Amino acid sequence: MGKFVVIGERIHCISPVIREAMNSMNPEPILKRAKEQIDAGAGYLDVNIGPAESNGPQLMKWAVTTIQSAFDNFPLALDTANRAAIEAGLSVYNRSKGKPIINSADAGDRIGNIDLAAESGAIVLTLCSKAGVPADNDERMAYLQELLEHGMSLGLDAEDMWFDPLFLVIKGMQDKQTDVLDFLKMCKDMGLKTTGGLSNVSNGMPKHIRPIMDSAMVAMAIQCGLTSAIANPCDRRLMETIKSCDIIMNETLYADSYLDI
Amino acid sequence: MGKFVVIGERIHCISPVIREAMNSMNPEPILKRAKEQIDAGAGYLDVNIGPAESNGPQLMKWAVTTIQSAFDNFPLALDTANRAAIEAGLSVYNRSKGKPIINSADAGDRIGNIDLAAESGAIVLTLCSKAGVPADNDERMAYLQELLEHGMSLGLDAEDMWFDPLFLVIKGMQDKQTDVLDFLKMCKDMGLKTTGGLSNVSNGMPKHIRPIMDSAMVAMAIQCGLTSAIANPCDRRLMETIKSCDIIMNETLYADSYLDI
Repeated sequence: MGKFVVIGERIHCISPVIREAMNSMNPEPILKRAKEQIDAGAGYLDVNIGPAESNGPQLMKWAVTTIQSAFDNFPLALDTANRAAIEAGLSVYNRSKGKPIINSADAGDRIGNIDLAAESGAIVLTLCSKAGVPADNDERMAYLQELLEHGMSLGLDAEDMWFDPLFLVIKGMQDKQTDVLDFLKMCKDMGLKTTGGLSNVSNGMPKHIRPIMDSAMVAMAIQCGLTSAIANPCDRRLMETIKSCDIIMNETLYADSYLDI
Repeated sequence: MGKFVVIGERIHCISPVIREAMNSMNPEPILKRAKEQIDAGAGYLDVNIGPAESNGPQLMKWAVTTIQSAFDNFPLALDTANRAAIEAGLSVYNRSKGKPIINSADAGDRIGNIDLAAESGAIVLTLCSKAGVPADNDERMAYLQELLEHGMSLGLDAEDMWFDPLFLVIKGMQDKQTDVLDFLKMCKDMGLKTTGGLSNVSNGMPKHIRPIMDSAMVAMAIQCGLTSAIANPCDRRLMETIKSCDIIMNETLYADSYLDI
């Protein structure tokens, strides 16, 4: 399936520094986080502007052009519930280094983002859910089928739909973790690409544990077929693990310097 | 399949300190390494006395009683090509904390160790090979069948045979790593227990990389069904990963202190 793709999650309006930068359209904090994540090995950068109800289109256009002009048209994931803002971002997005990603569609209110991806030739992250967390893998698979059929009926290539099983928090849903892994295997067997907010598994755990748990989970998930994650590429342990898994899966050739590449 | 079992590998005559201690029957260095490994979370301790051609039985008896009397009959794996030494070790082994492990049998010259396990009620590590590295999984599976049938014909319980797929060095056999993982899945599907010299994968890599690569591999292997490894429990990253995988697989209940338990 190719090398694992990390979609860097650190340009997110939930961060006070980024929110302030977005409010004032100050490029510096955003470009700083973009550079850190690119240097650390991100394959895409997620740009989450939140709902951005008042100025979404203007803000997303600004963010996309600001980041892409500073970093040689680095590929981005446009992340907002504001559809007009995604359309505006797509209108200025430069595809020379990769298709844009629309983050995200689901089988409920946001199914229209699949249509948008089909119309604009984008990749779309598709959550295998309608409202809330799917109860089990039967439900996940029912939503996946719905999403996949909808995309394919619109002429979207299956490999431009990256399915998100919804990673679950261990503190509270420990006994559901193997379900998520099993679901990734089913997706792999179907030849589908997958992604998700991996660090959700360690939500609420002590800070020193999170990189340890996330790294164990990513290795197990890659073994099950996970092809991408929305994650923090500045988490050194996580990136070391992902790069090592790429070696074990024979997706990149081993060299003693592989961790530095 | 229960919690992952680490068979601590550090009491090995290849270490100059241990060789000297075995030569002079000096308990201190051996007990020190036993304690370090038990404290770090080993489930078994491997006791490798080498071929020990001259004094094998005497040496193994001494090592077994020395370690078990100091550490409340901690369970051990008796590791030597000298069959008389294994028999001598078994004769003094105390089973109150777990069956002895015989390390190891194969489908070639050492198949008799399966008979010994059946006669003595021991667990036996069985290498899926005859002479050298199996060429592919068909060969691994042919040996596994041969070993399994031999053991079962002698009345040995299948769960007392821990099958070793032979982990391969990445530097030189990078493209064979997924074979090993696939083989572990087959063993899991058959309900069989598995083990192996995991750190062989990182053989020849720079020292700082080995715990990183071994940890990625162990997580992927546990996902595929690996139930045990002969490894260094004092490798902190490796043990953190194994404990995290046990949480993800729901084999131990999560607590914020799980890494310290």
